[in-house]
Amino acid sequence: MNQPFSHPGHWARTAGLALFGITLVACSTANPVDVHARPGVAAPSGETLFDHSIAALRASVDERRAEGVDVPVPVDAGGGYTHEQHKQNAKTIYEAGMLYQLTGESKYLDFAARILSDYSDLYPTLGLHPQVNPETPSRLFWQGLNEAMWLVYAVQGYDAIQDDLSAEQRSKIEDQLLRPMADFLSVGSPQTFDRIHNHGTWAAAAVGMTGYALGERDYVEKALYGLDKSGDAGFIKQVDALFSPDGYYAEGPYYQRFALMPFVLFAQAIERGDPELRIFEHRGGVLRKAITANIQETYGGRFFPINDAIREKGLNTAELRYAVAIAYDLTGDASLLSIAQQQKSIVPTPEGKKLSDAIAAGKSKPFAFKSQKLRDGPDGDRGALITLRSGPEPDAAALVFKATSQGLGHGHFDRLGLLYYDNGDEVVADYGAARFLNVEPKDGGRYLPENASWAKQTVAHNTLVVDQSSQFDGDWEEGEAYTPTILAFDDTVGASYAAAEITTAYTGVTYQRVVAMVDRDGGGSYVIDVVRGASDAPHTYDLPVHFKGQLIETNLPFTYAVAQLVPLGIRAGYQHLWKTAEASGVAAGVTSDLSFLIDDQFYTLTFTARQTLGAYLTRLGANDPNNNLRNEQAMILRATGKDATFLSVYERHGRYDNDEEVTVFSGGSVERLDISRSGRSDVYTVIPKSGGSIRVLFSDDTAPTATHQIQLDDQTVNWNGPVGLHISAGTEHSTKGEN
Amino acid sequence: MNQPFSHPGHWARTAGLALFGITLVACSTANPVDVHARPGVAAPSGETLFDHSIAALRASVDERRAEGVDVPVPVDAGGGYTHEQHKQNAKTIYEAGMLYQLTGESKYLDFAARILSDYSDLYPTLGLHPQVNPETPSRLFWQGLNEAMWLVYAVQGYDAIQDDLSAEQRSKIEDQLLRPMADFLSVGSPQTFDRIHNHGTWAAAAVGMTGYALGERDYVEKALYGLDKSGDAGFIKQVDALFSPDGYYAEGPYYQRFALMPFVLFAQAIERGDPELRIFEHRGGVLRKAITANIQETYGGRFFPINDAIREKGLNTAELRYAVAIAYDLTGDASLLSIAQQQKSIVPTPEGKKLSDAIAAGKSKPFAFKSQKLRDGPDGDRGALITLRSGPEPDAAALVFKATSQGLGHGHFDRLGLLYYDNGDEVVADYGAARFLNVEPKDGGRYLPENASWAKQTVAHNTLVVDQSSQFDGDWEEGEAYTPTILAFDDTVGASYAAAEITTAYTGVTYQRVVAMVDRDGGGSYVIDVVRGASDAPHTYDLPVHFKGQLIETNLPFTYAVAQLVPLGIRAGYQHLWKTAEASGVAAGVTSDLSFLIDDQFYTLTFTARQTLGAYLTRLGANDPNNNLRNEQAMILRATGKDATFLSVYERHGRYDNDEEVTVFSGGSVERLDISRSGRSDVYTVIPKSGGSIRVLFSDDTAPTATHQIQLDDQTVNWNGPVGLHISAGTEHSTKGEN
Repeated sequence: MNQPFSHPGHWARTAGLALFGITLVACSTANPVDVHARPGVAAPSGETLFDHSIAALRASVDERRAEGVDVPVPVDAGGGYTHEQHKQNAKTIYEAGMLYQLTGESKYLDFAARILSDYSDLYPTLGLHPQVNPETPSRLFWQGLNEAMWLVYAVQGYDAIQDDLSAEQRSKIEDQLLRPMADFLSVGSPQTFDRIHNHGTWAAAAVGMTGYALGERDYVEKALYGLDKSGDAGFIKQVDALFSPDGYYAEGPYYQRFALMPFVLFAQAIERGDPELRIFEHRGGVLRKAITANIQETYGGRFFPINDAIREKGLNTAELRYAVAIAYDLTGDASLLSIAQQQKSIVPTPEGKKLSDAIAAGKSKPFAFKSQKLRDGPDGDRGALITLRSGPEPDAAALVFKATSQGLGHGHFDRLGLLYYDNGDEVVADYGAARFLNVEPKDGGRYLPENASWAKQTVAHNTLVVDQSSQFDGDWEEGEAYTPTILAFDDTVGASYAAAEITTAYTGVTYQRVVAMVDRDGGGSYVIDVVRGASDAPHTYDLPVHFKGQLIETNLPFTYAVAQLVPLGIRAGYQHLWKTAEASGVAAGVTSDLSFLIDDQFYTLTFTARQTLGAYLTRLGANDPNNNLRNEQAMILRATGKDATFLSVYERHGRYDNDEEVTVFSGGSVERLDISRSGRSDVYTVIPKSGGSIRVLFSDDTAPTATHQIQLDDQTVNWNGPVGLHISAGTEHSTKGEN
Repeated sequence: MNQPFSHPGHWARTAGLALFGITLVACSTANPVDVHARPGVAAPSGETLFDHSIAALRASVDERRAEGVDVPVPVDAGGGYTHEQHKQNAKTIYEAGMLYQLTGESKYLDFAARILSDYSDLYPTLGLHPQVNPETPSRLFWQGLNEAMWLVYAVQGYDAIQDDLSAEQRSKIEDQLLRPMADFLSVGSPQTFDRIHNHGTWAAAAVGMTGYALGERDYVEKALYGLDKSGDAGFIKQVDALFSPDGYYAEGPYYQRFALMPFVLFAQAIERGDPELRIFEHRGGVLRKAITANIQETYGGRFFPINDAIREKGLNTAELRYAVAIAYDLTGDASLLSIAQQQKSIVPTPEGKKLSDAIAAGKSKPFAFKSQKLRDGPDGDRGALITLRSGPEPDAAALVFKATSQGLGHGHFDRLGLLYYDNGDEVVADYGAARFLNVEPKDGGRYLPENASWAKQTVAHNTLVVDQSSQFDGDWEEGEAYTPTILAFDDTVGASYAAAEITTAYTGVTYQRVVAMVDRDGGGSYVIDVVRGASDAPHTYDLPVHFKGQLIETNLPFTYAVAQLVPLGIRAGYQHLWKTAEASGVAAGVTSDLSFLIDDQFYTLTFTARQTLGAYLTRLGANDPNNNLRNEQAMILRATGKDATFLSVYERHGRYDNDEEVTVFSGGSVERLDISRSGRSDVYTVIPKSGGSIRVLFSDDTAPTATHQIQLDDQTVNWNGPVGLHISAGTEHSTKGEN
């Protein structure tokens, strides 16, 4: 599909391994993608983004070439010198190979060949790594995952130069390095190679891509179908098992990004080596869907930080840079170009050049972010990650509703959790993982103890906490056994909603949540949130709100702790919360509010409950003897009794503009909230100051096919399914329901 | 000087009042200037920045025209409806006038004329404002300052249309509005008009500009020379008294910006109406210097937030936008164009178009930020604000050394305070003011009580605190009486330094500080900081370090408070600090360190003391019953005894790159610090791991002309003045000293 480039015979091989991109070492300063800011890549006028990226790559590779490349005997575990050096060397082999293909300059051929030759000398002398993890045997690294990643890069570099190596060079590299390593990662590591897990995908990719490069079908077939070639393991099985039909990955967006890399790289090799497999069409095109899903799982350029997630990761990562390039090559979807323009650099591959040329030709279109339900589970029946957006723009309001499965060992106990973004900013947020990736003084860069004691706990999320304990009592394997039920989803822009319930997170408690995003009179959106816990026994129901920014005003009768702070609780994450303020005795049905400032925008949360409410303000940091936690704030609403029902509305308003010295703050636009019953349904009413009303109708009967009818203001209102949304603007009104 | 524009007869009058810009209402989202980001203004290709700004202005003014403009009877104080409406109306008159001059479209003429006519009906009916501040009488507003600002805008709008009004229209507006208002602000308000203060400058500008517009010399002369025209008051006197010879304004950068507006506007009017006064050359061109100084007083686009300062203010403010346009018109300095490119919009004046044309012609050059000493006081003898920078780039390292006077009632008790910036980020910071400007629920947007109890206090700054009290015991008038002595300043890039002392901030204590910025082996800079307190009596000496980011590692033996937090002290700001960790008994001479992460960069502070050290980690927020404070962290070093000497070195290093998944953290590059004596001098030695040494030499004899000689490593080292800097890279070395 790709046209040869200006240097014929290079870079576009008609047979053998296709060429894949890792990304350039960025020459610009690392800057989070900011939807307010200009696109991330910039090239001097007359130079394409690709030229610009290649110039930076040349400079970087030339520097390494001048310095010489050390190929040390393996000693260190993750983060240590030999570990990082071997990681870097694989990229250098790859990058030199790419530059050779692109430029035809023999210095890059020689450079790649020399490093490969050094490894060919070293590899046969190695036993297992001195600090090897016995469960994943490895030689260059302490774990097999890194060894597989090494081979994925190195074999691409080799493939890029092999036609111009001598027979002697080729046989040395293949016989002493590539084949032994591929054997070691396949037949030598069956427990990893045949595992349905992203480590298995990396191993399959490494072995399979080596097979294509060396013309060794045996490797290719084992990689595709498992060591016994039965199809019970191997890449095809992994594609079938690890993604949902919508391209969702059970561990969440952060790990989806990581898993995507070997899937997409190997799939591209398969597409060229075995085009009749039509791998990108396999299972309804799930690999393409997975790339798009991962882009949709971002806001402000960063992944939704659910589960164990490093919050900085997003569209700028190496994985997404070439995933976008490959996806554009496959689909020609011009909206992917605008994503590439936000990235820091362009991958040094034919797909990268194609991206860059299309951008230069002005083909870029805005990427349309959308409201969507990404079903979870191989069969799509293990809940869903639901996103509601107020529009397709990157800075439109977005509400993330996490009604997914547990997400395995990296999952958090946050079923039916909520995130809220607007105007390019996080407004109500997820802590992400308690981890400083690869920062040696922070427990070697691993997950910190506070990841388990805080970040995974239910109270660290914007979801219901029962009896100050975590869902499934903090047992992820228990959590893995149960999933929420999606009750409703409607993606109508301006009047979207979703609902889900879970009855297994807390013994004897049914937890239901309805979220909606509805256009607000005068612009912007209301985010409406109904949280309902029900039980036969009395409980304490807490609803944490992890809001960002600076608290400006609240009508809650808070008393602030001025002379002493103590923790809010003793376990399940509560031990990490300093209790900074406390309010109690807010009567059932009273409408309360809390306003805060983020950058130049105000946000107001208006809320009420069917029960008497108490509230706390907290600051994270108690029982943190190594200062591992960020000192973030939250409000926690508390109701006690057999049942608890919270109705909350979020909105953005006003302006705090210090450049123009204009401040507009008049509080939220909600006059009053009301919770009532009508027949066998709850009616949650938002009454704006501007008149009219917005009603969320939620029937006790959650059967998808049930039809409901109630009287509202002398009108008869009908809807189907558990949830209806009734919007009345004075005399006009409309009702929407699931059909 | 300005050429007429395409619509002859408009916009460039050959006589009368010149045309001045307030800035456009920005159509883009408010975004802090970020040195990493692309320039702030962007225009579609083929459209100049000016065209783009004018299009936005037209849209905004057309909208107001369509809606109609309310001219209400004055009722409200600051922030209320009538207050904000009258403020807005003055801008509307001005903007409509500018658009008429630019486009010749009569709708803008009619719009401005109609509003002016409405005010001409209203004004004669008004007595004093119902909520007037009796010290500054006013009619449209609660204080005279706003009335003067109103007239400055409105008279510019009037001048832009007056040639095309009927005689009847003119006489109504002049006789019922402009003259009565000018009279009221001059002879009617002598206590403000003749005051040497920025309120007086606004009044002079309003009256003087009205004089030029109406051809009324009496107004002009009173404005220039005071009501009695003697020169003891008035604008010329204000230019002489309110700026230092270097263009520094005693209240600091934030108030300098505010004060600059009437100075520059009226000066431009004078330049055209009375060119023989050569106002921009007056006093060595101090007004031009004041503009440049205000730009130099920024980092990352924001003003150094010393004294009472809203931290968001910077180059994007209206004041700076037209100050830059006027300064470029005066000087043709192409580096001002790059500042304009960072701003959000271009002012709708001939100077704005000139800026825009020059940018479009590719004339822009980078603005060179520099190390400099801005002397304080009318005679330049009241200390100085000193900045050391590692280079001219906006993201070069910068160290701000506040050795100025008190800065009147808005001054903070932070003499010899330090700020440190690097890589576009704040690293060691100033809290700024405790205030949410114009945010009504926050005490009406005024300074909060915590501004006095925290933000002004010495412990809120990076400077020496003696006996847990504030400088001058928190009495600003006492502080105003004394200034520091500048002991040294050398702006050599890569080896710059400065020193100052103050003996009056704490009774019986001499406080000296030496700061230096020295190139670091391998790139970047060391910021070296020597703090020395000396007394005949024992004291507690605290050195707070208000660092940003996330603490990563320290070798201090901290014990963290896990179960309870209590305040660190009871007064002078200490009552607001929660004590989160404590370390004690670090022996004299031991080298300690603290590393933290800001964005993708690590910083390490390496430090030692001549005395036994204790240390605290703190978090702001105790005794804050209205949640008015930001919850920021600090480290406070503590030594007790008659004397205390702290030697600190800051540096940036490593990389935390989550896009490339590369982390480099190997701690700071300083092997060891040493404090020793040689003869009658202190020798502060920084020994990098890479070898060599950097020595700050500080003599007991601080006479500027004294010469000193000591032996260092068998070398004889000579320097002049109190401070020398000796840099030895193995066998090479050099010594620098004041000459």
